[in-house]
Amino acid sequence: MASLYLSTCRAPVNIAVIKYWGKEDERLIIPTNDSLSLTLSIDDLCATTTIAASPDFSKDRLWLNGKEESTSTERIQNCLRAIREAAASRSSSPNPEWKLKIISENNFPTAAGLASSAAGYACLVASLKNLYGLEGNYSSVARKGSGSACRSMFGGFVRWHKGIQPDGEDSIAVQVAPSSFWPEIRVIICVVNDVKKDTGSTSGMQRSVETSELLKYRIAEVVPRRIEFMAKAIAEKDFDTFARITMQDSNQFHAICQDTYPPIRYMNQTSWDIVSMVHKYNSKHGSNKLAYTFDAGPNAFLFCLEENVPEIVEVLRTQFPSDSTDFIRGMYSDDIARKTNLSSALACELTPLPPGSLKYVITTRAGEGPTPIQEHLTIE
Amino acid sequence: MASLYLSTCRAPVNIAVIKYWGKEDERLIIPTNDSLSLTLSIDDLCATTTIAASPDFSKDRLWLNGKEESTSTERIQNCLRAIREAAASRSSSPNPEWKLKIISENNFPTAAGLASSAAGYACLVASLKNLYGLEGNYSSVARKGSGSACRSMFGGFVRWHKGIQPDGEDSIAVQVAPSSFWPEIRVIICVVNDVKKDTGSTSGMQRSVETSELLKYRIAEVVPRRIEFMAKAIAEKDFDTFARITMQDSNQFHAICQDTYPPIRYMNQTSWDIVSMVHKYNSKHGSNKLAYTFDAGPNAFLFCLEENVPEIVEVLRTQFPSDSTDFIRGMYSDDIARKTNLSSALACELTPLPPGSLKYVITTRAGEGPTPIQEHLTIE
Repeated sequence: MASLYLSTCRAPVNIAVIKYWGKEDERLIIPTNDSLSLTLSIDDLCATTTIAASPDFSKDRLWLNGKEESTSTERIQNCLRAIREAAASRSSSPNPEWKLKIISENNFPTAAGLASSAAGYACLVASLKNLYGLEGNYSSVARKGSGSACRSMFGGFVRWHKGIQPDGEDSIAVQVAPSSFWPEIRVIICVVNDVKKDTGSTSGMQRSVETSELLKYRIAEVVPRRIEFMAKAIAEKDFDTFARITMQDSNQFHAICQDTYPPIRYMNQTSWDIVSMVHKYNSKHGSNKLAYTFDAGPNAFLFCLEENVPEIVEVLRTQFPSDSTDFIRGMYSDDIARKTNLSSALACELTPLPPGSLKYVITTRAGEGPTPIQEHLTIE
Repeated sequence: MASLYLSTCRAPVNIAVIKYWGKEDERLIIPTNDSLSLTLSIDDLCATTTIAASPDFSKDRLWLNGKEESTSTERIQNCLRAIREAAASRSSSPNPEWKLKIISENNFPTAAGLASSAAGYACLVASLKNLYGLEGNYSSVARKGSGSACRSMFGGFVRWHKGIQPDGEDSIAVQVAPSSFWPEIRVIICVVNDVKKDTGSTSGMQRSVETSELLKYRIAEVVPRRIEFMAKAIAEKDFDTFARITMQDSNQFHAICQDTYPPIRYMNQTSWDIVSMVHKYNSKHGSNKLAYTFDAGPNAFLFCLEENVPEIVEVLRTQFPSDSTDFIRGMYSDDIARKTNLSSALACELTPLPPGSLKYVITTRAGEGPTPIQEHLTIE
């Protein structure tokens, strides 16, 4: 073998608190509005991608979670082409004309509906950047793979600016605050049991753009104002406001889905049970200590501060009884947070729901953007 | 006994196809937008109210479904005062100063969430009108009892104009077309099993006005356009368009509920199962033969044309198995429509759902406004 270049990166999942729903340009993946997200720690959820480049390879090949997939989709081609052009203009090595073998895996079930494509495309672009030794903001390349992937190119709080250029080159993600800025933030992911097939987000948002009258107003009036309020709440570490806007924007996104024709429904009964639980919890506390947000599926992403995690985990255990020995996973797993006693005022609000409606809970925190897990390796 | 005057009326339920959700004036019950409804036949659903007037009565008294209720609520007082003033200015008999005994009943369970207050207040005002021999449009008086009651003052298709006067005197209902104009229209009410307590519509719409950003746009932009398209579809007896706009407006109303903070949810899993069933049914037919609309509760109101009723009843029986011997009630009860065979293409789309999720189905049609069931009786 003449020579082999290797690059491996991990990339995170991100959860939008101001939602992206609707494309202005379907092909270039330019969104109808800015969005804002929190990047989650790769300790608990991540994609890992290894890329090998060699003059011996006869074609580009790709394996996703152990299964070979085509590299000829427009989305993958757009990412590969953009990075190779950038590499060629900088005369990087390895030679950008060499073919690639790409191996990508998620450490969580794709079926869980946890934004796997965002982590996956961010990881692809990060690994390619690393392979060719490129520097700078390549979020617009990740965007061409999967819109929200651009936000996974940075850690902490990230804003995806829709941009104004027709070619989408200024439709990029920018870090608003690093994860270290507000280190107390915790994320609790409730993975809901669901048998139903969801409307995919690509076709769903297209249908919303075509049929929802309310989406026009959301894009033109609501999001531009709301995203500024949200940025201010983050800058001031005002959790009560951060939580309220997060919940309002999740609700508005699902309202837009319902205003779509035919209507789209992502939240099921368990999702709504979680909504009720969160509002009860906040009402007992007299302020928002917990926030929910739902993406294009029934799973809840809850935000809170570190100090409230033990109580909230206990609230979840009480409301959603489970026989599972690893019901609570991640940084606060079952063996760590087991002994909290709920106040009687809170406990009596929580009628246990039928067992099994929540599959499991992943506890995690904010984290960094894509990380090379080894220097790129050159075997010659 | 010196003298006794008696008046008895029946009044119908109405179902909005362009929804009323939000008051501009809480006290006068002036809505934020026009709405449009179909009045249902009193053969299947109605309120019946008898009013007795006598100089021997010492105070106004009211019995609702057999239980005495206070007459001192602002809503009842507003109705009584307005009618008595009108009667006094025309020196009607009986003497408007005499006290009243009012007995009102619904022929359907109030708990079923079938707009009982609309029928009830329309019936109160119609019976009072009849008692005092008043003529003219008293829908603005019924409106002060319960907003949508004003639409039950007329048969067929009825538009409630929000009006422009601050005192609400021009916030009245007007008939758009009598029920005889489109006699083929049928209404199928699906009464859903539900254990949950809903947010009342009065407090729900108030919260939407205070917190939903999207409601502002619905009021200012969507409804004014949509109500004209709807009036045109009715004028042209264009069922496909009538059905589409009906579904879109129901969906938008529930979208506004979800955009409310905290969010309000009226549609449960069974409601959504009905939504899916209707879209599947229409898709098999290649046009909208069936429409759903949901008010502030989980029950579905389906609209169709007479020719499709047997098939649709069979679709409901297939999708929602029931042991009940009177599952299908009303004008097409179980013994009438029993033998339809579904096309295999349609049948194989319909996976039977767990038995009991639909309590029962009421089949009915459009109908007339309030009707005196006897001439007012005078016993002296």
